[in-house]
Amino acid sequence: MIQSLLYPSLEEASDFINSALRVKNLVVCCGLFSVEYVGRSSSTLGAGERILIIKGDGSVLVHRSKGYEPVNWQPSGCIIRCRVEDGKMILFSERRRPKEFLKAVFDKVYIIFSTSLVDEAKFLMGPSEETFYSILFQHPEFIEKGLRLTSRQKPLSTGVVDFTGIDEGGNYVFVEVKRRTAGVDAVKQLDRYIKSQPTRFRGILCAPSITKQALSLLEKKGYSFRKLDLNRISKLLTIEPFEETLDKHF
Amino acid sequence: MIQSLLYPSLEEASDFINSALRVKNLVVCCGLFSVEYVGRSSSTLGAGERILIIKGDGSVLVHRSKGYEPVNWQPSGCIIRCRVEDGKMILFSERRRPKEFLKAVFDKVYIIFSTSLVDEAKFLMGPSEETFYSILFQHPEFIEKGLRLTSRQKPLSTGVVDFTGIDEGGNYVFVEVKRRTAGVDAVKQLDRYIKSQPTRFRGILCAPSITKQALSLLEKKGYSFRKLDLNRISKLLTIEPFEETLDKHF
Repeated sequence: MIQSLLYPSLEEASDFINSALRVKNLVVCCGLFSVEYVGRSSSTLGAGERILIIKGDGSVLVHRSKGYEPVNWQPSGCIIRCRVEDGKMILFSERRRPKEFLKAVFDKVYIIFSTSLVDEAKFLMGPSEETFYSILFQHPEFIEKGLRLTSRQKPLSTGVVDFTGIDEGGNYVFVEVKRRTAGVDAVKQLDRYIKSQPTRFRGILCAPSITKQALSLLEKKGYSFRKLDLNRISKLLTIEPFEETLDKHF
Repeated sequence: MIQSLLYPSLEEASDFINSALRVKNLVVCCGLFSVEYVGRSSSTLGAGERILIIKGDGSVLVHRSKGYEPVNWQPSGCIIRCRVEDGKMILFSERRRPKEFLKAVFDKVYIIFSTSLVDEAKFLMGPSEETFYSILFQHPEFIEKGLRLTSRQKPLSTGVVDFTGIDEGGNYVFVEVKRRTAGVDAVKQLDRYIKSQPTRFRGILCAPSITKQALSLLEKKGYSFRKLDLNRISKLLTIEPFEETLDKHF
């Protein structure tokens, strides 16, 4: 649940921050304040309008109106206190080892909100499946020279095949793509798709690498392995902003 | 002026963001969203609750609940668009040269605010005057061996002297401190303070360095120059959180 205050008094803002800190909520505060820091280096920033972010793990960020980098920051584990003194709200963040101090002195708070954030998602390097398949669909030469792709994510009675197409020799082709090392399961998957068809399809398993066992099974079944060059592909990656823009391409 | 929406619909949030982008306002948005990025590298982050910041210069930051580093970011100069599609709000940020794309797909927006930020302050390396003088007051040995300081920022008829004290030989001392190279003005300042006193005070001008002209005048007046070792001082810097904690020391 979001809690927020618009144009609070400094006392209200200070109480709000201390309550949020107690339950380790995220706090985002926009106001007019100055910052002093000593620790890894030392710096002084006069008063200006900017935003201050405190995360539940005790990290602190000060962002100005421009640039992606924070002007001041403290890593996680800081002890943060807030109070009003002589008509200013003072937010003090202290890191114990190594010693680092950040002091923000607020003349005004314009808006402040706090919330807990539920976020269990994994951050994965590499593009999403959709982006990856889009680029292969536009560049079938990454799979095999002369290959033309006719559909993607085609539903079959035994599953959904990544691509269908026609190879240089005019054969109908099913392509199963893996973004990581292909194993025996991938071969079995491709085999199921091909066996579901009344007509003859060539099978291509396409991945950055393949296990020995999978390659042996693949060859026994008479299918082909095509190695994906992830570096070359990643140079061509783009994301299409919206669906209809994507539609124009196909 | 702050504009904000609490629990807006995705359509309201999208309109809000597009309006803010048009006038190059800062936008802070907290919600449930996934992120995909391709450019310098590529990455995929599944749905989770987090915050997204767009600055007026077209830089973009995505911050999760922990850590001072953004999980995704784009530098300034991005072209950003937002719209609702298939029940999701899609925020798309594109950098042209080099090509970089960030796509955030929102299931929910919890709070969003936008504002222009007036911030003309200079970011200066080095501690504030107050912090700097505090450390010297606690460590007069940085000024001169055996020196004891008795007051700081003492008002006189001719100005405010940084420190008063007693040196190893028992002489009363006035200390004028400069954080940068001391010039002739600093010598004249010290001279005014000392001449304002009916009793005899020793004069010390204390700075990381001094101009030739200033040193010559200083010696003519019979005062001393003491070189400040900024590196040694910076290792001892701390900031006191609140005034009363400071009072305990003196």
